[in-house]
Amino acid sequence: MNNLQARIEEQIDNISKFTATPDQGTTRLTYSKEDKQAREYIKNKMMEYGLQVREDGFGNIFGKLEGTIKDAPSILIGSHFDSVPNGGSFDGPAGVVAGLEVVALFNENNLKPKYPLEVIALIEEEGSRFGGGLMGSRAMTGLLSEEDFKNLIDHNGVSTLEAMKEIGLDSSLSKKRDPETIKAYLELHIEQGPILEAKKIPIGVVETIVGLTQFEITVDGRAGHAGTTPMDHRSDALVTAAQIIAEIPSLAKEEGEGTVATTGKLNVFPNGSNVIPSKTVFTVDIRSGKEKHIQNVIRKLNQLVNFHNKEGIKITVSQQLYMEPKAMNRDIISLLKKRSSTLDIPYCSINSGAGHDAMVLAEVTDVGMLFVPSKGGVSHTPEEWSDSLDIAKAVEILFETVKKLTEVEEYD
Amino acid sequence: MNNLQARIEEQIDNISKFTATPDQGTTRLTYSKEDKQAREYIKNKMMEYGLQVREDGFGNIFGKLEGTIKDAPSILIGSHFDSVPNGGSFDGPAGVVAGLEVVALFNENNLKPKYPLEVIALIEEEGSRFGGGLMGSRAMTGLLSEEDFKNLIDHNGVSTLEAMKEIGLDSSLSKKRDPETIKAYLELHIEQGPILEAKKIPIGVVETIVGLTQFEITVDGRAGHAGTTPMDHRSDALVTAAQIIAEIPSLAKEEGEGTVATTGKLNVFPNGSNVIPSKTVFTVDIRSGKEKHIQNVIRKLNQLVNFHNKEGIKITVSQQLYMEPKAMNRDIISLLKKRSSTLDIPYCSINSGAGHDAMVLAEVTDVGMLFVPSKGGVSHTPEEWSDSLDIAKAVEILFETVKKLTEVEEYD
Repeated sequence: MNNLQARIEEQIDNISKFTATPDQGTTRLTYSKEDKQAREYIKNKMMEYGLQVREDGFGNIFGKLEGTIKDAPSILIGSHFDSVPNGGSFDGPAGVVAGLEVVALFNENNLKPKYPLEVIALIEEEGSRFGGGLMGSRAMTGLLSEEDFKNLIDHNGVSTLEAMKEIGLDSSLSKKRDPETIKAYLELHIEQGPILEAKKIPIGVVETIVGLTQFEITVDGRAGHAGTTPMDHRSDALVTAAQIIAEIPSLAKEEGEGTVATTGKLNVFPNGSNVIPSKTVFTVDIRSGKEKHIQNVIRKLNQLVNFHNKEGIKITVSQQLYMEPKAMNRDIISLLKKRSSTLDIPYCSINSGAGHDAMVLAEVTDVGMLFVPSKGGVSHTPEEWSDSLDIAKAVEILFETVKKLTEVEEYD
Repeated sequence: MNNLQARIEEQIDNISKFTATPDQGTTRLTYSKEDKQAREYIKNKMMEYGLQVREDGFGNIFGKLEGTIKDAPSILIGSHFDSVPNGGSFDGPAGVVAGLEVVALFNENNLKPKYPLEVIALIEEEGSRFGGGLMGSRAMTGLLSEEDFKNLIDHNGVSTLEAMKEIGLDSSLSKKRDPETIKAYLELHIEQGPILEAKKIPIGVVETIVGLTQFEITVDGRAGHAGTTPMDHRSDALVTAAQIIAEIPSLAKEEGEGTVATTGKLNVFPNGSNVIPSKTVFTVDIRSGKEKHIQNVIRKLNQLVNFHNKEGIKITVSQQLYMEPKAMNRDIISLLKKRSSTLDIPYCSINSGAGHDAMVLAEVTDVGMLFVPSKGGVSHTPEEWSDSLDIAKAVEILFETVKKLTEVEEYD
């Protein structure tokens, strides 16, 4: 194992220790105690690597290596550092660590870029605390307004601003970033699917990220005693939710072409075994590489909801997020592939079934993305694993690509 | 308002303040901080009323008014003092307060019984913390073994014994009570249904309590990323649970004759919006006045579960509780009705759709039960309400009945 690979492994391992569920995977919700711990680790590592560290008014972290051109726009490189509940060590942190290690290679080679290089570590990509997902990148680019950001609350009714305050973050810092300050964005991420492993190829160059939308559906019924309320006098919020959730897979299957729909989160109130549920709240996540499929599933979901919106039951549908399918920048794709070839690292083109901050940044700048294989194709579980050797290969490709983008030297 | 009614109102109001959810109803889980507070209140009130107070090894509370016959069996009178999450003030406490006020009437009238009178306040009737329900009465009568009691854990993995210790209860105190020490059991409870209110009758004399059974069903599937796992490669634990839950109402409706079935509680793991659920755990509560209907629903539920127990999914069904329909004692029913007539209080016969500790005590002694009307027929919600005037009428009937059962004087 070379130094680069060893450092990657050590850092990912270190960050994985900041979890609310030790021995049961990584649970690092945004603005939690574990967020604060990981944040301190990343900021210290940035400083150790000679970067100027700052946070924005949402808690996103930026570590800047200044360029020689005054006030030039930055090449951003990084990913997110939050996790789903009981997730893995690689989803997010691998990309942040890759960004740091590109800087390490700049330092080792005494390189000074013309355009600044910024390592970024974003919050709340998963949406596990405040819903919707991709929050750090949406907020930073202004796609999520400051007003909407302030109004977000978690499952316990805690607002974003309250939660930031709890871990000592300053929400008065600058928020939306001027797109003129960004020249490009690069992100390394684990594939989270089975394709690269099956092909035995260490690098996937992402062509397109699927579009996605997320809904939160609230069913309001009427509580009552499970023994004394006749079946035909019930407004059972869970039975209605179950009828809807049971039908959702067929809506995606009807579309085909890799269209998927998922209810991952469901909370029942009051959640007592002998009380008829008065309220259920659940999510619906819909994704497809083609926008028409997403639109069709949304239409059918609304029809399904309307069908169940009957006497005694009130169903409210709230769209939390909508991102159309997003192509990566052709020039950066081409550059990533050329550098892989030069380094003699096998690669293939791939589409992303998962949403990524890269698709948000693609709204404001040129974006490129690399995947490394996921063992067994699994992610969002404690078993999630990627080989540090593959991540090191990706870092080498990114290093060469960033050298070109920051114009650190004449190339080709 | 007379003194009796005022005291009843004040005590129910006082006990309702021991809630984990102020302004959102009564949430008083067994062995919680609120249990300890209500427990202290009840024990102090028992002492104030001149009773000898003791707790058993499960945390049930007994306040004894000694009789003149040495070592004679007791007339028990009371109910439970736990609640469902976000429940009401009356379900349980009304019966405990009624027992206390029968003692107050003994004191006011300087009566000395031949047989002892014991006011009892039972734990965990609702099953909101440890599942199954009727735990205090089942444990006290030995229907729940000491071993099974010790093995019960709550949603957070806390055992009964650990939880008892946390609020300073002594689990080494005597546990199963010898049935020879009990002569009869009386319980006042709110109806939790619409019948008495509709008939405008203040007192229901219970003839039969419906049989009930409760199951906990666990669906194990496989977690995965909501975006990268194709629809036909999923083992989604929530979709399977939803398919089952959506069908449960029809199983009860097919039986008719007031048969009901309810899923009140459902927890999803890991419960993240972009993670395919790996596990769901939910309850099924089935009740009917006729045992054959309960048996039919159980049979069909098992068929339904087997149908969904397919590749990639493992469903485990665990029966938490089974109580057959239970008739109250004919002599006590007759006595309660005669005393109502003598006092000129209107009453009617009624069946109970809810399970009660009375049905457990009926396994070991003669049992009688009174209902008072529930406003709007609702219970297990913050809106649960019964008129203290009706409760006072029930106390008068119970007082006269207890005088007869304790042989305090020659009567009739």
